[in-house]
Amino acid sequence: MTVHSRPAPAVVLGQNQYGKAECHVVRITRDGATHHIKDLNVSVALSGDLEDVHLFGSNANCLPTDTTKNTVYAFAKQHGIESAEDFGILLARHFVTSQGPIKRARIRVEEYAWDRIARGNEDGGGAGGHSFVRRGQETRLAQVTFDGERWQVVSGLKDLVVLNSTDSEFWGYIKDAYTTLEEAYDRVLATEVSARWRFGWSGEPHREPAWESSYRRVRADMLQAFAETYSLSLQQTLYEMGSRVISRNDEVDEVRFSLPNKHHFLVDLEPFGLENGADDAAVYHAADRPYGLIEATVLREGAEAGIPHDLTNL
Amino acid sequence: MTVHSRPAPAVVLGQNQYGKAECHVVRITRDGATHHIKDLNVSVALSGDLEDVHLFGSNANCLPTDTTKNTVYAFAKQHGIESAEDFGILLARHFVTSQGPIKRARIRVEEYAWDRIARGNEDGGGAGGHSFVRRGQETRLAQVTFDGERWQVVSGLKDLVVLNSTDSEFWGYIKDAYTTLEEAYDRVLATEVSARWRFGWSGEPHREPAWESSYRRVRADMLQAFAETYSLSLQQTLYEMGSRVISRNDEVDEVRFSLPNKHHFLVDLEPFGLENGADDAAVYHAADRPYGLIEATVLREGAEAGIPHDLTNL
Amino acid sequence: MTVHSRPAPAVVLGQNQYGKAECHVVRITRDGATHHIKDLNVSVALSGDLEDVHLFGSNANCLPTDTTKNTVYAFAKQHGIESAEDFGILLARHFVTSQGPIKRARIRVEEYAWDRIARGNEDGGGAGGHSFVRRGQETRLAQVTFDGERWQVVSGLKDLVVLNSTDSEFWGYIKDAYTTLEEAYDRVLATEVSARWRFGWSGEPHREPAWESSYRRVRADMLQAFAETYSLSLQQTLYEMGSRVISRNDEVDEVRFSLPNKHHFLVDLEPFGLENGADDAAVYHAADRPYGLIEATVLREGAEAGIPHDLTNL
Amino acid sequence: MTVHSRPAPAVVLGQNQYGKAECHVVRITRDGATHHIKDLNVSVALSGDLEDVHLFGSNANCLPTDTTKNTVYAFAKQHGIESAEDFGILLARHFVTSQGPIKRARIRVEEYAWDRIARGNEDGGGAGGHSFVRRGQETRLAQVTFDGERWQVVSGLKDLVVLNSTDSEFWGYIKDAYTTLEEAYDRVLATEVSARWRFGWSGEPHREPAWESSYRRVRADMLQAFAETYSLSLQQTLYEMGSRVISRNDEVDEVRFSLPNKHHFLVDLEPFGLENGADDAAVYHAADRPYGLIEATVLREGAEAGIPHDLTNL
Repeated sequence: MTVHSRPAPAVVLGQNQYGKAECHVVRITRDGATHHIKDLNVSVALSGDLEDVHLFGSNANCLPTDTTKNTVYAFAKQHGIESAEDFGILLARHFVTSQGPIKRARIRVEEYAWDRIARGNEDGGGAGGHSFVRRGQETRLAQVTFDGERWQVVSGLKDLVVLNSTDSEFWGYIKDAYTTLEEAYDRVLATEVSARWRFGWSGEPHREPAWESSYRRVRADMLQAFAETYSLSLQQTLYEMGSRVISRNDEVDEVRFSLPNKHHFLVDLEPFGLENGADDAAVYHAADRPYGLIEATVLREGAEAGIPHDLTNL
Repeated sequence: MTVHSRPAPAVVLGQNQYGKAECHVVRITRDGATHHIKDLNVSVALSGDLEDVHLFGSNANCLPTDTTKNTVYAFAKQHGIESAEDFGILLARHFVTSQGPIKRARIRVEEYAWDRIARGNEDGGGAGGHSFVRRGQETRLAQVTFDGERWQVVSGLKDLVVLNSTDSEFWGYIKDAYTTLEEAYDRVLATEVSARWRFGWSGEPHREPAWESSYRRVRADMLQAFAETYSLSLQQTLYEMGSRVISRNDEVDEVRFSLPNKHHFLVDLEPFGLENGADDAAVYHAADRPYGLIEATVLREGAEAGIPHDLTNL
Repeated sequence: MTVHSRPAPAVVLGQNQYGKAECHVVRITRDGATHHIKDLNVSVALSGDLEDVHLFGSNANCLPTDTTKNTVYAFAKQHGIESAEDFGILLARHFVTSQGPIKRARIRVEEYAWDRIARGNEDGGGAGGHSFVRRGQETRLAQVTFDGERWQVVSGLKDLVVLNSTDSEFWGYIKDAYTTLEEAYDRVLATEVSARWRFGWSGEPHREPAWESSYRRVRADMLQAFAETYSLSLQQTLYEMGSRVISRNDEVDEVRFSLPNKHHFLVDLEPFGLENGADDAAVYHAADRPYGLIEATVLREGAEAGIPHDLTNL
Repeated sequence: MTVHSRPAPAVVLGQNQYGKAECHVVRITRDGATHHIKDLNVSVALSGDLEDVHLFGSNANCLPTDTTKNTVYAFAKQHGIESAEDFGILLARHFVTSQGPIKRARIRVEEYAWDRIARGNEDGGGAGGHSFVRRGQETRLAQVTFDGERWQVVSGLKDLVVLNSTDSEFWGYIKDAYTTLEEAYDRVLATEVSARWRFGWSGEPHREPAWESSYRRVRADMLQAFAETYSLSLQQTLYEMGSRVISRNDEVDEVRFSLPNKHHFLVDLEPFGLENGADDAAVYHAADRPYGLIEATVLREGAEAGIPHDLTNL
């Protein structure tokens, strides 16, 4: 921090970062008639000796955000995109090691998955080819931070909507003067999973995790834990999801969830002479707002928490 | 239309409709341990003898939008939801036949698909169960209109993003003083499909189409035609998609598409000494705006067009 | 329409249009130290002799959407932007008159308003200068259609949210088996105005309306009518808004509204020993979905309706 | 933190919080014929002795999110809404002091401003009345955190879009192998301000700041600094905005900005024989993505930074 001299009071520059956000890069590789696609939205944030640009508008230490964007596209060509995490590592290393004033780089990636469009009957499931449909389910996330010495990699996902139509209860809670909620012994439990998980890996000489297979396992563990937990609260489900991720994936030290409780309210149909309970056929109103929001971190014992508390802005 | 007497000029009420929009109804049915889910967002629009409510605020002929909402939820319980189209038919018939002043009802439905979360190894693909993950790909659409005599059913989808990484060219177009575009002999072709298709069925004594299987076939035909067409323009691809739908699905008389051209521009990497062409590994910038927008209707010969021209508002 | 010969069934091309959507053009003009800004989002849709591009991928009659985009930017420089409507007229005339195969052009514009940032004490409310803050209230809309002979101009706005905290009732409506709504004698009435109004002007020799002042008047008339109407239903308020627009603006022949009823529900605070009525201080829950949706056209007597029924897609 | 005993590895619960998000409360007060409106979207997040709910699903210490929602609405009636900050303080104090297990509360508020609709000629600018139009410019933000001892109040805003059409340059930056950007000596500088500022006030016996007038001053200072700074980089403009806020508002100790550089690119019109420079009339393409993103904190000397680094998620 640098003190900027003004009469009174003195004003100080604090943490700062800058870069190009949302470089949407698509890389197509051709393996004969079979093509492969990687679809990433990359955001760069750089920090370093940048007081002068803030205080005096001197850009001598400033690598333009336009250049960071060019680097994203050029690296996709030069180095390929093995995974979002690998690509983030390449970029972060480049910015920190090639520019003296840049001391820290953080690369954030959103990745969109694509499935192949199966060809029709005529030529069977043949070559696979060059036609894709965007899967459109969760958005995969990766964040790589490098300060010249240590690496931090946080992977994640958002927009994954899940629902259990039974095996969820909620009762035994505090009742105060403002409580009107009825206890529930068989309710719908639904949420839109936003999760971030931090890897223990901090750089050489340790071997990098296998990012792609790790992602698939962590995602599957979260889904399994959601589906298999008989839930007495969304917090309990969250914790089961987190502890399954930690206990089954040695490479992950910490996971944080932000789980909106997507309320499905049983509609009161009594005025129309209809019973509506969580029995053979139940009708729910899927509400928008307000919604419960449950957030927590689950850690490997001994690990230090490193993921910020707020994954969303509400 | 009714003339509302004012000194000068006389003002007239034209087409009008009203109802509750976006009733988000989820119905869970239990078949032993195997549950089923239908997730619909239903909008009701009613027309009829409604001049007095507009001109004088007399609500004597007005069924409140709140009541139309209640009806949606009650019908989900009473009649179930066989398909979005069936549910729309039930609702439209009810409003038109039960309320004298209501002469026409239009029910619009958005449907969100859910997949089962497969259980882990322990008990195999067993019972199926009660855990779901939202598919998150296209949104299915249905619109049912009934005026007491004739039915019109239009199904559709939106948000289905597809991409061909080759077999697309664009050349031989008009060049004028404002043309700078280079001709392309191997480009990426990507779009977000918004489609509506109208059924020939207009009511009894004709048998209703099998809405669910029809949807699956039409969707598959569109995807196949997109994938298999060697494209010289997005218009050609659109027409192939439409004509395949019409020629393979007897129940469909008309289909309209709104296809934004999701431009994937080859990044110019020459300044960095890198060649970047549509060869073994190409890097594209996926652009947002502006975008080409291609819209057209394809009809069965002899059919009269009934789908409005603008599926989006731009 | 052209019949595309296939064995069976024959398939026909219907209405079609294409062009570049959402060209976001900002024009800054300098009048000494005082600058002016026009901020438009322009979408072009062209129709004409375009069968061959659909059926055979022949682009000989196709002016690329990229060229239509270039034309938007070039025209902003060459001709300036007097108003959204004037700019649309220039573009539509150009496309139809300069390209034989193009028989019809429709230009849609969204316009974003900017206010000046008032300078501080030093030089008073002086010259105004070059600093702006986006107003962020309604989005202004304009649509110009030209087929080589006749012009149609439709102006409009969206996203204008208004609220009356009293002088609104709703009672005397139909009650059926699904009605639970209580009658209301003093409620909040709020809506987000989406409106389109069509001008009588259809081209020379008639003089063009003064588009900018007309917009301001129509907008003010709608707001005044909303504020001044003692409302027995949102339909009545809509009609008062529309008839005021028609009766006070000779240049406008038709106006259509899509008015979502932004429900503000009095919260039931009785469980907490609190009365909550529409009296000195009332607390409302502002709900999202579902919402009533009221849509209607109001016409000058003798005018033919020309605005499509659906301004939104629900 | 509590160790949850599992064979291996041990898993630990970290930071956690929960509550009801986005309670949209509107309060109308009547001062004779003149009404007043407060329109807040309130999110509650509580922390405390909540291990058991996570580990075992025991809700004994859990105040349901539904109750926190009820409290928001009831407090709006009981205590009124003096300001977003005052309302947050009331709620935070209540949750922490009334429930033993709740040790910390954070209340976040979004506030939407409304203007009066001026009545027409008949009765002048008179009483004001009961008709409002949503201003629709920035969204005001407030966050109150209380742990039973200390208060932290952070106010803010988002969505405030500003533009200088001159007095902005960018040159003298690092050039590396990936740099193609041309230096600019007269460019458009535009951004969408997202800001948060932290008050020094931490509770009694110190007097609370006057939240409403403080907001107006801080907002005006930011706008003035943006307008009056001759900018050599967006970082410099940010710093001027921040230092003006700190130096002119004694109650504020820290401010953080997230400023996307809303690029306005001069369109290359040379292919059409048109010059287009930042002179008397210039045409820009307002780009969407990617965009520069400039973020920094500015502090009063001696103050400790307390605002998280990421105001957005990219």
